[in-house]
Amino acid sequence: MSATARLRILFEHPGIIRLIGAHNALGAKIAAEVGFDGVWSSSLEISASYTLPDASILTMTEYLAQAKAMVRATSIPVIAVCDSGYGNVHNVIHMVREFEAAGVAAVCMEDKIFPKVNSFVPGFQKLAPLEEFASKIRAALDARHDPNFMIIARVEALIAGQGLDEALKRAHAYVAAGADAILIHSAAKTPEQIIEFFNAWDFSAPLIVVPTTYYTITAQELEAFGVKVVIYANHGIRTIVRALRETFSTILDAGTSAHIESEIVPMQQILALQGMPELKQNERLYANGRQPAPANQIETFS
Amino acid sequence: MSATARLRILFEHPGIIRLIGAHNALGAKIAAEVGFDGVWSSSLEISASYTLPDASILTMTEYLAQAKAMVRATSIPVIAVCDSGYGNVHNVIHMVREFEAAGVAAVCMEDKIFPKVNSFVPGFQKLAPLEEFASKIRAALDARHDPNFMIIARVEALIAGQGLDEALKRAHAYVAAGADAILIHSAAKTPEQIIEFFNAWDFSAPLIVVPTTYYTITAQELEAFGVKVVIYANHGIRTIVRALRETFSTILDAGTSAHIESEIVPMQQILALQGMPELKQNERLYANGRQPAPANQIETFS
Amino acid sequence: MSATARLRILFEHPGIIRLIGAHNALGAKIAAEVGFDGVWSSSLEISASYTLPDASILTMTEYLAQAKAMVRATSIPVIAVCDSGYGNVHNVIHMVREFEAAGVAAVCMEDKIFPKVNSFVPGFQKLAPLEEFASKIRAALDARHDPNFMIIARVEALIAGQGLDEALKRAHAYVAAGADAILIHSAAKTPEQIIEFFNAWDFSAPLIVVPTTYYTITAQELEAFGVKVVIYANHGIRTIVRALRETFSTILDAGTSAHIESEIVPMQQILALQGMPELKQNERLYANGRQPAPANQIETFS
Amino acid sequence: MSATARLRILFEHPGIIRLIGAHNALGAKIAAEVGFDGVWSSSLEISASYTLPDASILTMTEYLAQAKAMVRATSIPVIAVCDSGYGNVHNVIHMVREFEAAGVAAVCMEDKIFPKVNSFVPGFQKLAPLEEFASKIRAALDARHDPNFMIIARVEALIAGQGLDEALKRAHAYVAAGADAILIHSAAKTPEQIIEFFNAWDFSAPLIVVPTTYYTITAQELEAFGVKVVIYANHGIRTIVRALRETFSTILDAGTSAHIESEIVPMQQILALQGMPELKQNERLYANGRQPAPANQIETFS
Repeated sequence: MSATARLRILFEHPGIIRLIGAHNALGAKIAAEVGFDGVWSSSLEISASYTLPDASILTMTEYLAQAKAMVRATSIPVIAVCDSGYGNVHNVIHMVREFEAAGVAAVCMEDKIFPKVNSFVPGFQKLAPLEEFASKIRAALDARHDPNFMIIARVEALIAGQGLDEALKRAHAYVAAGADAILIHSAAKTPEQIIEFFNAWDFSAPLIVVPTTYYTITAQELEAFGVKVVIYANHGIRTIVRALRETFSTILDAGTSAHIESEIVPMQQILALQGMPELKQNERLYANGRQPAPANQIETFS
Repeated sequence: MSATARLRILFEHPGIIRLIGAHNALGAKIAAEVGFDGVWSSSLEISASYTLPDASILTMTEYLAQAKAMVRATSIPVIAVCDSGYGNVHNVIHMVREFEAAGVAAVCMEDKIFPKVNSFVPGFQKLAPLEEFASKIRAALDARHDPNFMIIARVEALIAGQGLDEALKRAHAYVAAGADAILIHSAAKTPEQIIEFFNAWDFSAPLIVVPTTYYTITAQELEAFGVKVVIYANHGIRTIVRALRETFSTILDAGTSAHIESEIVPMQQILALQGMPELKQNERLYANGRQPAPANQIETFS
Repeated sequence: MSATARLRILFEHPGIIRLIGAHNALGAKIAAEVGFDGVWSSSLEISASYTLPDASILTMTEYLAQAKAMVRATSIPVIAVCDSGYGNVHNVIHMVREFEAAGVAAVCMEDKIFPKVNSFVPGFQKLAPLEEFASKIRAALDARHDPNFMIIARVEALIAGQGLDEALKRAHAYVAAGADAILIHSAAKTPEQIIEFFNAWDFSAPLIVVPTTYYTITAQELEAFGVKVVIYANHGIRTIVRALRETFSTILDAGTSAHIESEIVPMQQILALQGMPELKQNERLYANGRQPAPANQIETFS
Repeated sequence: MSATARLRILFEHPGIIRLIGAHNALGAKIAAEVGFDGVWSSSLEISASYTLPDASILTMTEYLAQAKAMVRATSIPVIAVCDSGYGNVHNVIHMVREFEAAGVAAVCMEDKIFPKVNSFVPGFQKLAPLEEFASKIRAALDARHDPNFMIIARVEALIAGQGLDEALKRAHAYVAAGADAILIHSAAKTPEQIIEFFNAWDFSAPLIVVPTTYYTITAQELEAFGVKVVIYANHGIRTIVRALRETFSTILDAGTSAHIESEIVPMQQILALQGMPELKQNERLYANGRQPAPANQIETFS
């Protein structure tokens, strides 16, 4: 079954869908291993992995490459953050074709101008005109080949400080334009703002949220409010920075990795995540004319 | 000062040089922040980030791209793992030109055949003929423009189970061919094997080690043995896998990130690592004709 | 219909299939426009476009990127030259997955060692052991998802001066291993050598030829001999070098392009090949909330 | 000597500088071979090679990759078309760093909004506010490390139909902002419009022109008007389309390449452009431990 079909089924079945952010194939594979329903190919995480601002500095090319690597690494659906669509309707059409061809299950566009700046940076948030963004949604819908390839519209009105009415007006307009789902974004420290939106929404399209700042609300509570998807968008990269700083400092200070060996996975688990067992199996399967490595030796690492 | 000059100075000054492995710009930046002397652009880590075997499956193109991203992210020297040189002498010549042009300070080639398999996977290790590898070293030296761009020869004789004499013979041959330094690799569980090499070596070239398996030996002890560079080659990725599994599982189980918020860095630190403060500064510096974001707002995140 | 299905139908219907070499999307689009049945994504042409030797210097990454660009540019099938499979069976498995995911209709592997050198360069041609190459074919077959994705085995025995018997032996072995078609390559100045092969072949698999040096034989004659595919592999790049030299010299000498304006296509045809008419149409289709360019103006170029 | 120094010397010496457009390394190498002073890495040509509109659909990543390939292929300076700077000042700063690191000698930015559309497409041309573009120039100047890395400001006022006064006002403002040279663009069918600009210009900065439509004016005449650089920006790709169509059609119709063999370069010249002679030489130079190909054999192709 295609990734798009798998994602559509998740939307059609009861229960909240849980996505987690990643910036490379490894994060996507661990997301699937742990049990997440899908991967959020995050522009914040990808740009952070390059130490470049999440401000349309990296181009669609790098975001697409990482999304494609995630698709290859896992069978759970990959949903790609596509900023504001990388430009105008022509960029959006190109974007949809490229991400669909890469095996991504859905793309998410936000109603900001290009170049955008990450939603958690105050002072830079500027919305695109509503009709212009609605046109992008229509262009995206027409550009997809597979009707299960989902077009998610991200409403940034609350982020830009324009209030509930503007957020609702835009969400309705994007549903009218054909958006498959609405991501309503908020950077409030507590859930009140987003709950206010839930209470005012008619659920004419499924709702998606990103509780980065208002993290006290649980998936169960969100589901009770009618939310269909919850995304933990940036916790992977925030975990990595903390963990690398600790490991690197400890090794440098101690002059040895001895003290952290028990706190990090052994090399064998890295090799396993890389598919070394499959390579080993293929080594024997296609060993015609050559002497394969003795089984007892090549078993060692796994 | 160029990265190659900085690395050469480190080699000429007393004291052991400490490198740590990375697979992207973020790891390189944290390495510098923590105080490491340089970054080891690791093929194990990079291939693991793609969940592909460290077996010459990814090509020079992807390894070069990551090394280049690391160079841009930090001012400490980047030393790039280049497998067995990606083929024959012609590939080596091309490789040296490309990595030098990318601003990398040194490349490290190992004396195995192409395609190679990661040295910690038993049963796959096959050495290249000594003279063939010596030719690659000579070709690499002739191909560099900057004499400070270092060519490191990695001796895999101990890894391949060929013993101390073969290791010494090869190390001497590679020094004779012009290698700037020798990386003597061992996958023994304890330091005895590598110490045996130290005691037999004439130090006609600086020595580099990778204490992944024999991690009980300290940098101070290695320095006392005359070792010039110690590389912690894979602890970053091993840290990340453990940490991501824990964070992802905790969030999925709890249905919220509330319980791990204090254990991961806040968004502000991610934004800072991405260079948002510099972007903010440039916003004001080049605001001609536009209204920059109010200073009080854009200060918020930092 | 998928590109693989379209190619399979061409093989199942009577008549010789005509392919022409290309190194980018533009060449592929012109191939389709002119009426060729498919595009040969040529490693010779692609490496020449980089001015790098056709000797496994560029990696699979660059060859894949160009093949993918060709797939996007045209609906005729793209058949990709994949050298000797970029390494061993593990590289072949990765290669098949990547090229199939890119929408390529078939891959062609030659039975030479890695790194290979272009078949028209004497003195460098070394064959892989027969059984080793047969294993690659089996691995490739197992790796494909779509049974219509074709695996073409290219026999280089005549190129390597090993004679008809070796060529036949290898061709039969590769058919036995499951190859969907055999490309029998010859660099003889006249067709005698290849005709000798035709006469000795049992046509247990379709035959493909590349009449670069023995170009006097026609497609009609090849068809009469039972050949299924003829590939004009390098005439595009050879045309381009001649034509660019003439245009560039004429402009430089004359100090103006006036003398060659009638011999090159007008800008409007370049814009049309780029899809400017479609962009223009989309401009009007998705003009909500904006004033589209007046129709009379944007018609001008087409 | 660096490419930037070589370009600066060309600007300081008397005589008009002649550039020709290219979209890949091969075009750049032929440009140098024929005698052009430098290469114009053309967004029109590069996007056409992908059969995508020259409308900011391809990203900086692809343009940078081709410019870098040109730099490697030749020692004449490469001047890169960088559209409107790929976004705002932050994108410009990133762009300058990346193109300078790639060994490009100069970048050219045009004063249009993002996404831009090729200047020869009427109805889409919209200028950026003057002060906003001047800020981009200042940001670009501050971002370069090498003062010889040139920042060229392209004035599109005549293209956008805004007249001579606006063109002059903008050209002066960009010189005041620090632009190293002014490219004054015109799509008029005859040279009157551009000559009017020449007569009104104070030559406070060197002038660059692109006589695509008003091609009757010669380099000698332009030099007499004081113009410093003439660019033949798109004649390569226009030549290629015509030539490929003819070659492909002739081969398809005739069922053989026999009739065009004398009109295209022989394979040997392709191999030579790819550097096969250098590879051959290296083969002998680094043949230690292996038997190199016999000299008489490997001479054959050259």
